[in-house]
Amino acid sequence: MTQTLETPLSKVKRGPNRASHDKDLALDIIDAALMCHVGQTKDGQVFVTPTSHWREGDYFYWHAHSKARNVKGPIDKPEKVCINISLLDGLVLARSAMHHSVNYRSVTLFGVPELVDDKEEKVRQFKLFLDKVSPGRWEELRPVNESEIKATGVVRIKIEEASVKFRAEPPIDDAADIDWPVWAGVVPLERHWGAPQTDPIQQQNFAPAKPPKAF
Amino acid sequence: MTQTLETPLSKVKRGPNRASHDKDLALDIIDAALMCHVGQTKDGQVFVTPTSHWREGDYFYWHAHSKARNVKGPIDKPEKVCINISLLDGLVLARSAMHHSVNYRSVTLFGVPELVDDKEEKVRQFKLFLDKVSPGRWEELRPVNESEIKATGVVRIKIEEASVKFRAEPPIDDAADIDWPVWAGVVPLERHWGAPQTDPIQQQNFAPAKPPKAF
Repeated sequence: MTQTLETPLSKVKRGPNRASHDKDLALDIIDAALMCHVGQTKDGQVFVTPTSHWREGDYFYWHAHSKARNVKGPIDKPEKVCINISLLDGLVLARSAMHHSVNYRSVTLFGVPELVDDKEEKVRQFKLFLDKVSPGRWEELRPVNESEIKATGVVRIKIEEASVKFRAEPPIDDAADIDWPVWAGVVPLERHWGAPQTDPIQQQNFAPAKPPKAF
Repeated sequence: MTQTLETPLSKVKRGPNRASHDKDLALDIIDAALMCHVGQTKDGQVFVTPTSHWREGDYFYWHAHSKARNVKGPIDKPEKVCINISLLDGLVLARSAMHHSVNYRSVTLFGVPELVDDKEEKVRQFKLFLDKVSPGRWEELRPVNESEIKATGVVRIKIEEASVKFRAEPPIDDAADIDWPVWAGVVPLERHWGAPQTDPIQQQNFAPAKPPKAF
């Protein structure tokens, strides 16, 4: 156990045997995923938006158009958002319907977003994001310009209030069901990056970009 | 365009060129995914919970322990939840950082959950869920019992207020950047079900379960 991210809000109440509040474990899952789901409210209505995220140290970042709901909303009207990052790892097929499950890794983060407004810091964060998506690519791109920096909103929350849930094991059946005549086990979900599809309008030959380690 | 799921709440405001409110398209994406993210509030705080879902006709279903937040909360205190279902399909690597994107399919659903309380109907829904996860498996399992039915909460919302967003194309760069000397294109994310891992405690040999078409 490294630092704990447990607070009254982030403490897991149900299924504590599959829960953790360990910071290093949370950071590993955050880094292993490309996408998260940002939950926020507007006029009392909840909204959930999928988006890409990245991390630097203790901060979790995402971006969108400067005027998009998931960056502008919680800044205009500060609120503690809830962000879930989850990766499905496999199907757990048991001998009874009840004990079917999934193997997965999941982090639920809480925090009040803050806007990253400084121009140079924004560009530095764009690079960190690109470094996650395709290592080494940033240096090869047409440099960002003023209007792009302005049009892109970057927000972050400090990773200090979060929970982790995960499952990574065979089915756990009732003892009485062990000899029930049906196959039981795990079917793993495998992800990989397929063959790069070059932009059809590209004329020259270049080496394709490196894919990320995250999925 | 089949039936529309557009309402003042579900109407997409940003990026309408990548948006749709077509019901058949929404249903296809819902069925192609195993997992969704349920957004709800409790005492004004938003929570986002990943869970598995299934569908029958115009209704979207999920389940959890009868006392879990994501089934009991919106029943005890009715509210319009927001559910996002999304599938990442690839990385879109452009010539400028600004035009980097992802190919994806995403549905955002709104509705007030209703509890499925009738015992026989609950069991019928369990079967439909199993049929999605592993076709033909339900009939081979140890039958569900009374306490399992009671312990499992099933809720549903009618699919009538939703939006779809998707992207499935090469990068779209600024005209001035087309000859910038860097590879541009799409790196597709591929998913498949790996070799079944039989429960180590299983003694007999059975044919492994069929994996689902959804991911």
